Amino acid sequence: MSQLLRVQCFGVSSDGFGAGEGQSLDRPFGHADPADLLSWAGATASWAHRTDPGGTRGLDDYFTRDMPRGIGAEIMGRNKFGPQRGPWEDLDWKGWWGDTPPFHTPVLVLTHHVRPSITLSDTTFRFIEATPAEALRQAKEAADGKDVRLGGGVATLRAFLEADLVDTMHVSVAPVELGRGERLWSTPDELLDRFHLESVPSASGVTHLLFWRR
Amino acid sequence: MSQLLRVQCFGVSSDGFGAGEGQSLDRPFGHADPADLLSWAGATASWAHRTDPGGTRGLDDYFTRDMPRGIGAEIMGRNKFGPQRGPWEDLDWKGWWGDTPPFHTPVLVLTHHVRPSITLSDTTFRFIEATPAEALRQAKEAADGKDVRLGGGVATLRAFLEADLVDTMHVSVAPVELGRGERLWSTPDELLDRFHLESVPSASGVTHLLFWRR
Repeated sequence: MSQLLRVQCFGVSSDGFGAGEGQSLDRPFGHADPADLLSWAGATASWAHRTDPGGTRGLDDYFTRDMPRGIGAEIMGRNKFGPQRGPWEDLDWKGWWGDTPPFHTPVLVLTHHVRPSITLSDTTFRFIEATPAEALRQAKEAADGKDVRLGGGVATLRAFLEADLVDTMHVSVAPVELGRGERLWSTPDELLDRFHLESVPSASGVTHLLFWRR
Repeated sequence: MSQLLRVQCFGVSSDGFGAGEGQSLDRPFGHADPADLLSWAGATASWAHRTDPGGTRGLDDYFTRDMPRGIGAEIMGRNKFGPQRGPWEDLDWKGWWGDTPPFHTPVLVLTHHVRPSITLSDTTFRFIEATPAEALRQAKEAADGKDVRLGGGVATLRAFLEADLVDTMHVSVAPVELGRGERLWSTPDELLDRFHLESVPSASGVTHLLFWRR
């Protein structure tokens, strides 16, 4: 089985935005409330950040449960890692996730400003400047035979879709409009020339869109 | 996280039958055509018996992909293991699955006629006479901290549901009537006093029913 590049549990608004406008340290999703996009995931038993027992075990849980499985590395854009732009002014910034990031694998962070790697628990962030194809090559090597997750954000997803490197993609569409911000698409139908698409409404109110290559 | 007892990808007809009448060596599902109940699973990329590449990666694939993950043992009834009844007359019978069964864990086969264990590749079938509660205790021990799959057939599912030992259950309902055979339920609503239920229609034509404890 070959290694796949997979997008998992990426949340967008009904008008196609994956994040709002104006990202900052306090507002990783800009003007958007991340709960609007991702509370469906937080309600599940398998959500990686869950601290108490319990949680739902219906359809949504299959998606959060699947997230870590078979994944050996993640690729993310710099803006998923943090709010700084341009040359790094604060090297003490180590991502949004505290001392135990939920990745548990190598994470390749795409940036024009390379900096030394950071290891936190069993996650190592490596900062590389590379084309999507070259980043995927390095990520597959780091993943040691497993699949690679494409973590986002929107600009990173668009770049890898543009380069036709994405094999499967799960996007959750929340019943909320953002109006502005980082837009993944005008409509998911844009991708139908290259992908199969199943649309699966969930009891939680989101609709799961499942893409895989034709 | 405690160990769960889970039913996965168990197929029934729209009138609630998990197998037809008249099981035999040539007809493991009796008069029923197993493809009517389970072809949705066979079409997915992650189906354990797939021999060629390809297959779908939509909703149905999440269910087949989830099957082996986190499972450390299976419990099955004798009639899932084979068509013989009463004392074993043919000890050469080693199950329907050939030299490489798809379980890859210990499998506890419930029977009133205990016989020596059989190891085929990385699957070991152990034959035990036990109540559901005692079988579950032994299976959890064999599963080494992982979850236990309750594999079927219908009579075994019913016995474990009756004993209130099932934690989560995924049943696929196919758009076909069998009329007679081994019946799981008259209606899934029978279980609503003890379980949450989500009903998820799939593009393949089956409806996935997802139960988890209240």
